[in-house]
Amino acid sequence: MSLDIHIHQTDLTVGDFREALKLLQHNTDKEGLHLFPELFLTGYPLQDLCLQQPFIDAYLLNMEVINNWSKKEWKAKNTAILMGGLHYHFDDNGLPFHIQNAIFCLIPGNELEVIYTKRLLPNYDIFDEEKYFTEGTENIIWEFNGLKIAPIICEDMWPSNFYTFDPVEEIRTKAKEGIDLIVNLSASPFHIGKLRKRIDRAKEISEVLSAPFIYVNKTGGEDEILFDGLSFYIENEEVKNIANPFQKDSFTIEINKNNKKPSPIKTPKTVNTWESLFSPQFDHLKDTVRLKKLSDEELESTLKALKFGIQEYARKSGFKKFLVALSGGIDSSLVLAIVHMALKEGQDLEAIFMPSSFSSTESRELSEELCQNLGVRLRQFPIKFLHSSLRTAFIDHLSAPLEGLSDENIQSRLRGLLLYARSNQTGAMVLNTSNKSEISVGYSTLYGDSVGAISVLGDLYKSEVFQLAQYINHNYGHLIPNRIIDRPPSAELRLDQTDSQSLPPYEILDPILEGLLSYRLSPSDIVDLGFSKEEVQKVFNLYQKAEYKRNQFCPIIKLKAKSFGFGYRVPICKAIRDYI
Amino acid sequence: MSLDIHIHQTDLTVGDFREALKLLQHNTDKEGLHLFPELFLTGYPLQDLCLQQPFIDAYLLNMEVINNWSKKEWKAKNTAILMGGLHYHFDDNGLPFHIQNAIFCLIPGNELEVIYTKRLLPNYDIFDEEKYFTEGTENIIWEFNGLKIAPIICEDMWPSNFYTFDPVEEIRTKAKEGIDLIVNLSASPFHIGKLRKRIDRAKEISEVLSAPFIYVNKTGGEDEILFDGLSFYIENEEVKNIANPFQKDSFTIEINKNNKKPSPIKTPKTVNTWESLFSPQFDHLKDTVRLKKLSDEELESTLKALKFGIQEYARKSGFKKFLVALSGGIDSSLVLAIVHMALKEGQDLEAIFMPSSFSSTESRELSEELCQNLGVRLRQFPIKFLHSSLRTAFIDHLSAPLEGLSDENIQSRLRGLLLYARSNQTGAMVLNTSNKSEISVGYSTLYGDSVGAISVLGDLYKSEVFQLAQYINHNYGHLIPNRIIDRPPSAELRLDQTDSQSLPPYEILDPILEGLLSYRLSPSDIVDLGFSKEEVQKVFNLYQKAEYKRNQFCPIIKLKAKSFGFGYRVPICKAIRDYI
Repeated sequence: MSLDIHIHQTDLTVGDFREALKLLQHNTDKEGLHLFPELFLTGYPLQDLCLQQPFIDAYLLNMEVINNWSKKEWKAKNTAILMGGLHYHFDDNGLPFHIQNAIFCLIPGNELEVIYTKRLLPNYDIFDEEKYFTEGTENIIWEFNGLKIAPIICEDMWPSNFYTFDPVEEIRTKAKEGIDLIVNLSASPFHIGKLRKRIDRAKEISEVLSAPFIYVNKTGGEDEILFDGLSFYIENEEVKNIANPFQKDSFTIEINKNNKKPSPIKTPKTVNTWESLFSPQFDHLKDTVRLKKLSDEELESTLKALKFGIQEYARKSGFKKFLVALSGGIDSSLVLAIVHMALKEGQDLEAIFMPSSFSSTESRELSEELCQNLGVRLRQFPIKFLHSSLRTAFIDHLSAPLEGLSDENIQSRLRGLLLYARSNQTGAMVLNTSNKSEISVGYSTLYGDSVGAISVLGDLYKSEVFQLAQYINHNYGHLIPNRIIDRPPSAELRLDQTDSQSLPPYEILDPILEGLLSYRLSPSDIVDLGFSKEEVQKVFNLYQKAEYKRNQFCPIIKLKAKSFGFGYRVPICKAIRDYI
Repeated sequence: MSLDIHIHQTDLTVGDFREALKLLQHNTDKEGLHLFPELFLTGYPLQDLCLQQPFIDAYLLNMEVINNWSKKEWKAKNTAILMGGLHYHFDDNGLPFHIQNAIFCLIPGNELEVIYTKRLLPNYDIFDEEKYFTEGTENIIWEFNGLKIAPIICEDMWPSNFYTFDPVEEIRTKAKEGIDLIVNLSASPFHIGKLRKRIDRAKEISEVLSAPFIYVNKTGGEDEILFDGLSFYIENEEVKNIANPFQKDSFTIEINKNNKKPSPIKTPKTVNTWESLFSPQFDHLKDTVRLKKLSDEELESTLKALKFGIQEYARKSGFKKFLVALSGGIDSSLVLAIVHMALKEGQDLEAIFMPSSFSSTESRELSEELCQNLGVRLRQFPIKFLHSSLRTAFIDHLSAPLEGLSDENIQSRLRGLLLYARSNQTGAMVLNTSNKSEISVGYSTLYGDSVGAISVLGDLYKSEVFQLAQYINHNYGHLIPNRIIDRPPSAELRLDQTDSQSLPPYEILDPILEGLLSYRLSPSDIVDLGFSKEEVQKVFNLYQKAEYKRNQFCPIIKLKAKSFGFGYRVPICKAIRDYI
């Protein structure tokens, strides 16, 4: 007995029911079993959307349309679809009472039928599934064409000490006579290094259950979260097929009747949740601790992720033009290079350089050189005169001169204002250029350089920004002038300003931040690693006080296990005197 | 047998361990039982803070200090403390493995001891407790001085269909011979009308368990969330004592041995969670549906809440000065009046009026009149010249005139920039002046009029803004000039602009929004209530498209069951074509 299995790695905008229907109608003619990702029928993550009546009404209506299509038009033979969707249970008042993250089965001529509901609901970091969903109560073996298939959903493959039961173990117990296939429908967010973990775990499960394993992941960018796809098929502990990352894709495999029985050994539990967040990414060198260097492979997947994240946000919010403010520094230069590399036919990119009297000639020359390298149109908009008009106006109207911080910030905010006026003129999407080090310590001006629709580098420390720039130069032509990479970082908001006047050097700042942001280390732990007490306390203080800025920050494309953004939830107001 | 019970309604900043210690040391001399709120030892809500090592270290250290104080210095006799705190369970690697929201008991000479852990963990709207905490497994009867006391924590009194067990019912079963007291240590956020619900429910439980009921609530503002206190004592279905709202307070009662047995009738479950969010606040008039009018009592508690919220945010972030931008319209005028009413000795308030060429003379006169009424210093900063410099600069540098939206937005952003430069000069906290109607439909400029440290009116619809202004004028002297209340709302960003050119009149807009934001109604449900299809669709569209603005908005003082902010989680990018 054999069966063709068609894996559909789709990219659906949240709530785009019509598109879900179309994808089903145009991709399910072939005989065999068609697999679509977790929550394919609704999109993911939904958050409160799944509680809102307009969403519920449209979703239920679409289910009706799908049922009608299956009953009247879908003529495929010996075919079935398994796909993720929401299973609503309503109370007497018609309110959603329980909602389950389910697998629906559709067979030509029949209606949608729930065959399985997700058992492990992730509820850490960016995941709030227990807030919305009710967990399923049992695992099943589902038969099709005489083959025994164990379907699970995403997190179900990651039983850990944080959950009270283990779906994999339950399958092993139920499948005494063996199963022919494990199928995991997923919507698993990308972070650097995650693919390896997924494959290792899938192999483990495949071995214990003595059956091949199919992992169907969605792809797409949803605000800050990226889904990398990379759906795969594992047989005999080998990855036999793997779909492309960050794009729609599909492949077909053939499954045969399998006569092996599950192993008598239990599947080991993983420690997947807090543990993985709690490990700072360090390189322990001889006497020093440094931020872990990204490998070339990791830099390549970072670059792919960022290009994809920019395009997905643009596509889903309807932008075809991009706008980047250049300072002559590394962050904005790298952002411009990445957007340029991401650009598609028919899209437009503009750079704008807004020098003040503190901007060096070098900054201008380097911005020009960069734009020439990339072939990007550079607009120059000096703010010297406007800045001085503002200074005069403050004396005229308030008799209060702009000095120190107020004079530094106003330049940054003036640039934010001009950038957004330009965006209003051209309809371009503004890319934020802050990096994770800056965001951590609040080294930015609220409503100034912190503006943007989406942040490209907000999950990369400054040291990683340098690494990525060098990687691009090395592998994609020499796009970013060396002098941009070599010059000392500066905000250029006052005479001869450099970052190092306010902050420790980045090779020290970044590992301190990684220690704190992993949640795992306290200031004194970090001092024990060899950093100076003064610097650690200074960084910790700056980090604590910048919460209000992060609170109003734009979405940051997520690249790490622990990032600022939706999964980072720390009160703005808090006493810190007792723990430094 | 009798016992004095001391209720301590405290206001602790999150993580202020030293202050928690001090409060214990200075308030627990008296004989009897001292009660402090839920999570008194840590503050609440903590979110990710409770996972961060610096926080955990400082907390555990403070527990040690408290133990030492109890063993060596605390000499009270016949005394005990019950208070909320976190109970950490660590794994082999020293990582927090389980965390419980617990009641600790402290008796002079002894160490802190956990006697109970919270069973019902709220996980809807602003609550994420299942993300961080592990639920307790049983209810207990705790004895002190021969009296039987049933302790519970906050949500434990609200069993509903969303939970699988009922702590109140478990107490009833365990307390066959009767108990002498129910104690609920709470950290229950304020929203309009919530006190009534708490009291009604406490009476119900008190009746079923045939025992008096003490409700100990914390007070304080934590970012957007307010805790109103209002701790109370119920005996024989009567509220015998109630603490003041929105301030630290305490009272003492005497409890006697109680010989009544629990009722044989089960406590009815409540339907507390989604249901209460899902009820739009409407008045159904003859043929029309309108937003529910706030009663005088509700307006008074709204005013108290806003004053408290402003002061709490200022105190916890270290501000003593306030800054409000006046437009001559109702929103900013009301904000100024409220801040003025909230002002304390030694604090400073400044208003700034920034007219453009589109600002009417009336706006200036009314701003002056308002500031005269309040005795607030008014700064005038005309933006006409700067605006025209910007217009010229765009032509000079980009050959692109500012027109339409870009010209409207730049005025709003210029005001935001000036406001924050002024804030940098004086160290004043900027109060945001947007209302809920504007925020809902995105009728504001990102980085322009949407700026601020905290939003005062962001949970009040425009119609409610009018009601509150009238209420203040009626009850607190005629502070806000009538003409401000009567004139047609306008952003004054172009010639003769009024809100009604872009939006339906507020008496129509607001109920449509309430229907949508309650999550309960779809556009077609709202049309069925008597609103025009065109208007409903227009509003729904505007609401959907403004998500990106709300995403970067400042914290909004929470007044309603369903508010924008932390408890409102809706994706920015989503397809909406299928459900309008």
